[in-house]
Amino acid sequence: MKLASLKEGGRDGTLIVVNRELTRAVRASSIAATLQLALEDWGNAAPRLNALFEELQAGKRADAFALDFEALASPLPRAYEFVDGSAYLPHVERVRRARGAEVPESFYTDPLMYQATSAGFLAPRDPILAASEDWGIDMEAEVVVVTDDVSMGVTPAQAEAHIQLIGLVNDVSLRGLIPGELAKGFGFLQSKPRSALSPVFVTADELGDAWSGCKLHLPMRTWINGRWFGEAEAGVDMQFSFADLIAHVAKSRPLTAGTLVGSGTIANEDTSKGASCLAEQRTVETLRDGKPATPFLKFGDRVKIDITDRAGKSVFGAIEQVVKQYVPA
Amino acid sequence: MKLASLKEGGRDGTLIVVNRELTRAVRASSIAATLQLALEDWGNAAPRLNALFEELQAGKRADAFALDFEALASPLPRAYEFVDGSAYLPHVERVRRARGAEVPESFYTDPLMYQATSAGFLAPRDPILAASEDWGIDMEAEVVVVTDDVSMGVTPAQAEAHIQLIGLVNDVSLRGLIPGELAKGFGFLQSKPRSALSPVFVTADELGDAWSGCKLHLPMRTWINGRWFGEAEAGVDMQFSFADLIAHVAKSRPLTAGTLVGSGTIANEDTSKGASCLAEQRTVETLRDGKPATPFLKFGDRVKIDITDRAGKSVFGAIEQVVKQYVPA
Repeated sequence: MKLASLKEGGRDGTLIVVNRELTRAVRASSIAATLQLALEDWGNAAPRLNALFEELQAGKRADAFALDFEALASPLPRAYEFVDGSAYLPHVERVRRARGAEVPESFYTDPLMYQATSAGFLAPRDPILAASEDWGIDMEAEVVVVTDDVSMGVTPAQAEAHIQLIGLVNDVSLRGLIPGELAKGFGFLQSKPRSALSPVFVTADELGDAWSGCKLHLPMRTWINGRWFGEAEAGVDMQFSFADLIAHVAKSRPLTAGTLVGSGTIANEDTSKGASCLAEQRTVETLRDGKPATPFLKFGDRVKIDITDRAGKSVFGAIEQVVKQYVPA
Repeated sequence: MKLASLKEGGRDGTLIVVNRELTRAVRASSIAATLQLALEDWGNAAPRLNALFEELQAGKRADAFALDFEALASPLPRAYEFVDGSAYLPHVERVRRARGAEVPESFYTDPLMYQATSAGFLAPRDPILAASEDWGIDMEAEVVVVTDDVSMGVTPAQAEAHIQLIGLVNDVSLRGLIPGELAKGFGFLQSKPRSALSPVFVTADELGDAWSGCKLHLPMRTWINGRWFGEAEAGVDMQFSFADLIAHVAKSRPLTAGTLVGSGTIANEDTSKGASCLAEQRTVETLRDGKPATPFLKFGDRVKIDITDRAGKSVFGAIEQVVKQYVPA
């Protein structure tokens, strides 16, 4: 099934079920008011939501309506936890090579992850707001999974059963603020502002054999100002599966229902596939030409992030955002 | 007024109003089911909660009941955001001095903060669970404030009006996991598991002149296994006020109602005041004797964290936790 949230009903939106073609939807309020509430009672809610999806898919719902992407919030307009990985080692290797550093051997066995902000997710068509272009505004196209409640100390094998939904995230990054912040030693804060989620989250069965080994085996398609930017394979070069990432986070604490776990920017060794963030592209240019040529995002720039199935149909709907200047009131 | 949450009614608990003496309480369900909901509508909820507090204080509530600390969840059993500072520079200076490093000049003007987990807070009397003593289990006694909605780009002067509640947090830290994690460059994740909040959060007017300049001017009292451990002054050596910390986080994003902002471990230049975490005490010992003498917490150890007013009465109730071994199911 496919799930989304309308920008109505409060801070957590209103849960809707969306058809496979992303053209029609139906409110799921009789089952759960919000996606967060559904995830907190997933064993009960999921079969009922799935039955509603089947009815919608069969054209049996008189209360169905045309899906309007502009009316959508992120499926989780806010969440209690977002932990983001950096699971594509070609990205890490390239960034380090560009500054003449080695990748520590442990990076191949111990996932690199960080605590991200989850208090608000931009809607999939909301603008990216930044006060200054000097902040080095960048996108990061990633796959994200949503868990139900996960016990502390789960193994990767146990973690798999807790992956309930899959979607996309644009992990907005402010490259100009990152070096100073990381030099302080405590990770990202100002440099990782609010991210946007894909219009729709889906269950693994919607992905068929494109979901295997707790990885999504489809290309991440990105465009900047309408021009092709990348189509890196999300199933290739992902060093750690989502089950590995969940187990890593859960080592010292349980995870709450509705936790988002991100893959990190999709990046392949094969640079002909393009990139999923500007920093990656600039690193490829630096390694090739000695300096970057592609600028970071400017006010007015548009980004599009989408994953299509092998038939070319969008799975999650596209994230489409324009960069705008933020002026405090 | 003073607010708390019962461990009943669901994942966010049940909001209660507590009297000044921390002996009696009354359910606030007719005003807001949970503290999170009250914070989301604070302008409306706060005056009504305050009126209920005045009635309770005057002995006019027939539905009042004896406060049982064991029945309390943390005031916010879970939250959308917890950002923690490291605002006491004596701590930073001492840690750096112990390893022969300098404190960068920027640390005196640019707050050191990190994104912490907020998906679940231990109740004030819940055990601290860890799989191994080798993780280097430590407490960190801190002051925390709770905001309502804060716009992106607020100034410190604007931020002050968004501090709605004040309390304590035991920011549980796993010292054995910190060096490896920080060496990876993306901050804390496994090394900062769930924290515990004080039984009660209070509004600034409850603190009288102990709240000034967006700092709490009272000593942070800590005990380990019933023995005095520290009474560092929270109002002394705090380089950045809570308003400064809020403005720092809000530079690139808004904050959602119910955001917790922590001070970092209370630490004074005057070491006769003791410490607020074991790592601090061990650093003092290392600087003095060449090596630490005080071990980290062992299974069965008890910690107590409390702030009393100048008359010796507990303001927020004490955090009292025992360390226990966690064994996965």
